[in-house]
Amino acid sequence: MIREPFDRSKHVYHNEAFVELVKDAVRFFNGTPVHPLPSPEKFLGTGVYALYYTGGNPIYARYKELNRLSYDFPIYVGKAVPDGWRQSRISDSETTPSTKLYRRLREHSRSISSGEGLNLADFLCRFVIVEKEGSDMIGSIEAALIKLNQPLWNSGVDGFGNHDPGRGRYEQARSDWDVVHTGRVWADRLNGIPNDKSDVLASIANHLKNLKKL
Amino acid sequence: MIREPFDRSKHVYHNEAFVELVKDAVRFFNGTPVHPLPSPEKFLGTGVYALYYTGGNPIYARYKELNRLSYDFPIYVGKAVPDGWRQSRISDSETTPSTKLYRRLREHSRSISSGEGLNLADFLCRFVIVEKEGSDMIGSIEAALIKLNQPLWNSGVDGFGNHDPGRGRYEQARSDWDVVHTGRVWADRLNGIPNDKSDVLASIANHLKNLKKL
Repeated sequence: MIREPFDRSKHVYHNEAFVELVKDAVRFFNGTPVHPLPSPEKFLGTGVYALYYTGGNPIYARYKELNRLSYDFPIYVGKAVPDGWRQSRISDSETTPSTKLYRRLREHSRSISSGEGLNLADFLCRFVIVEKEGSDMIGSIEAALIKLNQPLWNSGVDGFGNHDPGRGRYEQARSDWDVVHTGRVWADRLNGIPNDKSDVLASIANHLKNLKKL
Repeated sequence: MIREPFDRSKHVYHNEAFVELVKDAVRFFNGTPVHPLPSPEKFLGTGVYALYYTGGNPIYARYKELNRLSYDFPIYVGKAVPDGWRQSRISDSETTPSTKLYRRLREHSRSISSGEGLNLADFLCRFVIVEKEGSDMIGSIEAALIKLNQPLWNSGVDGFGNHDPGRGRYEQARSDWDVVHTGRVWADRLNGIPNDKSDVLASIANHLKNLKKL
């Protein structure tokens, strides 16, 4: 085998079609029906979801305004990928159908229900199910939606999607989300020094100020 | 806004072009030049890489055999994504060019150099640089390469890509990789009970037995 000299340009991959493809998925996503949170029916599948806030909490007033006519501005975007996806131990065709996306929405519903200042009935969700080989696209769709919408709980306030760190790891600090929306039992156990609520609120206000209708 | 009844089929996204696109990226990857490890030159970029083993360690003899004529079977596949990618805080066009992929290869070189039974000169690497909006595709390319090649250090033996867990977290056990290739300083500090070396070796033999030329 001949060893070639180093030439960076031989390693650069570019495919314009990929960008178009992600745009197509985002368009599809924005056309899917909006449902209450958690989903009214249990369903099978993995994919990408968005949560929309429509309530009256004054710190999120900007979302009420932005979503007045249609749900365009999620407060959070997330994904549920097939088990074993990271290690790719199993081919997608072998993956047993899972209710992972549905369960993720339920889990978020519990966080919202326990968070001070939030009312589950004020939330709506959208989701897209991506199956089989297409599931490799889940991360790309999620990233595109986050980039496009800069959802506050992804890009401005950390911690909504966090899990109980478990025994022996409570030396961490409460996340910014848990500072604003106290109430998750495991978050109350954390011993680290969290950020000041006033600082977090200022950063929320700043983030929302910059969200604009395209 | 009219709330629609729940209909799963309205949420399923499918795009055949995506599967073709990932195949195209994999073909490009397999055509890129092979280089020694670490890369002979520093370069800018994020993307996907693969490591190939060509040495004489008998537990990896199957790789020597499989890669005799061309480098088709990586022992490890990994990715380096732009900073802030997970939160998508920054658009890719704003990302400062980074040497993350290059640094990842250097980091792996250090792990290999300290691992018992391994010789850095027996490794080769391949990598593809994926830039700008295309960087959302990095995870999909990595997943496809892992699924296709079932690299031993991704799919059969855990831990090669691990990092020093840091102070206060040494209660974990050494990974299977560190059981077979002792020597990483931080891994030697771990206090948990690792798997038996004989079990790990048996699982390696079993994994490699099933790797086949397509």
